[in-house]
Amino acid sequence: MSEAILAHPRFISLEGGEGAGKSTAIATLREALLRRGHEVVLTREPGGTPLAERIRDLILDTRDSLRGEGEPEPLAAEAELLLVFAARAQHVRRVIRPALQRGAFVVSDRFTDSSYAYQGDGRGLDPAWIADLERRAVGLRPGLTLLLDLDVREGRARASGRDLWPDRIESEQDDFFERVRAGFRRRAAAEPQRFRLVDASRAPAEVGQAVAAALDAWLEAQR
Amino acid sequence: MSEAILAHPRFISLEGGEGAGKSTAIATLREALLRRGHEVVLTREPGGTPLAERIRDLILDTRDSLRGEGEPEPLAAEAELLLVFAARAQHVRRVIRPALQRGAFVVSDRFTDSSYAYQGDGRGLDPAWIADLERRAVGLRPGLTLLLDLDVREGRARASGRDLWPDRIESEQDDFFERVRAGFRRRAAAEPQRFRLVDASRAPAEVGQAVAAALDAWLEAQR
Repeated sequence: MSEAILAHPRFISLEGGEGAGKSTAIATLREALLRRGHEVVLTREPGGTPLAERIRDLILDTRDSLRGEGEPEPLAAEAELLLVFAARAQHVRRVIRPALQRGAFVVSDRFTDSSYAYQGDGRGLDPAWIADLERRAVGLRPGLTLLLDLDVREGRARASGRDLWPDRIESEQDDFFERVRAGFRRRAAAEPQRFRLVDASRAPAEVGQAVAAALDAWLEAQR
Repeated sequence: MSEAILAHPRFISLEGGEGAGKSTAIATLREALLRRGHEVVLTREPGGTPLAERIRDLILDTRDSLRGEGEPEPLAAEAELLLVFAARAQHVRRVIRPALQRGAFVVSDRFTDSSYAYQGDGRGLDPAWIADLERRAVGLRPGLTLLLDLDVREGRARASGRDLWPDRIESEQDDFFERVRAGFRRRAAAEPQRFRLVDASRAPAEVGQAVAAALDAWLEAQR
């Protein structure tokens, strides 16, 4: 059975590693869309619904660490992938599709591209499996994806000290994040009509301008 | 990519609807295996590891009901399937395989057959998807599966009053459980070398004898 994957013009995702400035970029997008009179729903992955946020806690496992329940149970890569897609299936049906259907813009901090990068390139799971899960459990893709691209060491240096306890993903080594970055860049190159690569090594104001310009061009092209 | 699914001779699962007497049957199996000097690991699905039990809570959602947090968030069928397999991927790697590798018998209250029956026949999800998840995330099948078969109304009558709050699955209607039962029976008929169908409408002592006899025959055949 094959389900189509719809790319929706009002669905925008942000991708990129830690410390690349996604939060600031999201605020920029929100402001620009509101100024044009659009309803904007900001959301994030993994998570986005109460149940999906509980799945997020299981994946990132910050909660166990804080509770001091001893070493967290290692999470098998396959289980991580399935948890991420369970949360996404819920997120799409409960939040993203209803918002798009009523005419809102949806801006998501991460979406399926993160699964290809983190669980595929990072953990080495078969991308054909991820593609099958995207088709069967999600069926929706952003019309526009902004990839905030940044050197891995630079990003980790910026992000360090932000959290008391690094989560399960943040605890990975540099070579993991190098594979993730390479995966994101490869996907961006393969889908130039959807991705905009933003050089996140520049000053925040410049990154904000690049994000706003990418949105402008996208909205212009939709007319 | 194709991974093989291994049927392990010391891995035994019990399947069947509510009220069919699985708990008693498991106690019978445990007793019979211990008497023969085997190590026995009893486990259950969804669950079986601390993390998988937390996934179980999300699936069955009894906890939210007890907390009085209002209506639980409806769980999409696709998300339910992925959560069940995330828990199973964890269960197989952390508990079942290690136990089998050290020579123990593993007796599981439910396993992948339940996904085919509940999420496949019950919820209408594509069995080809379930087969793909079994292959990619599990890769292991019981050598022996005892299906405790019972009329749906009879089973629900027996099980009623056992829980204060019916969980998400127990709250389904009779036609759902009729589809689940038919699915289990169809699978049992298709794999007679693995399944033993046990008529669970009889008195508990007779069911126990049938279970013990099925185990005897299985162990005998393994010599």
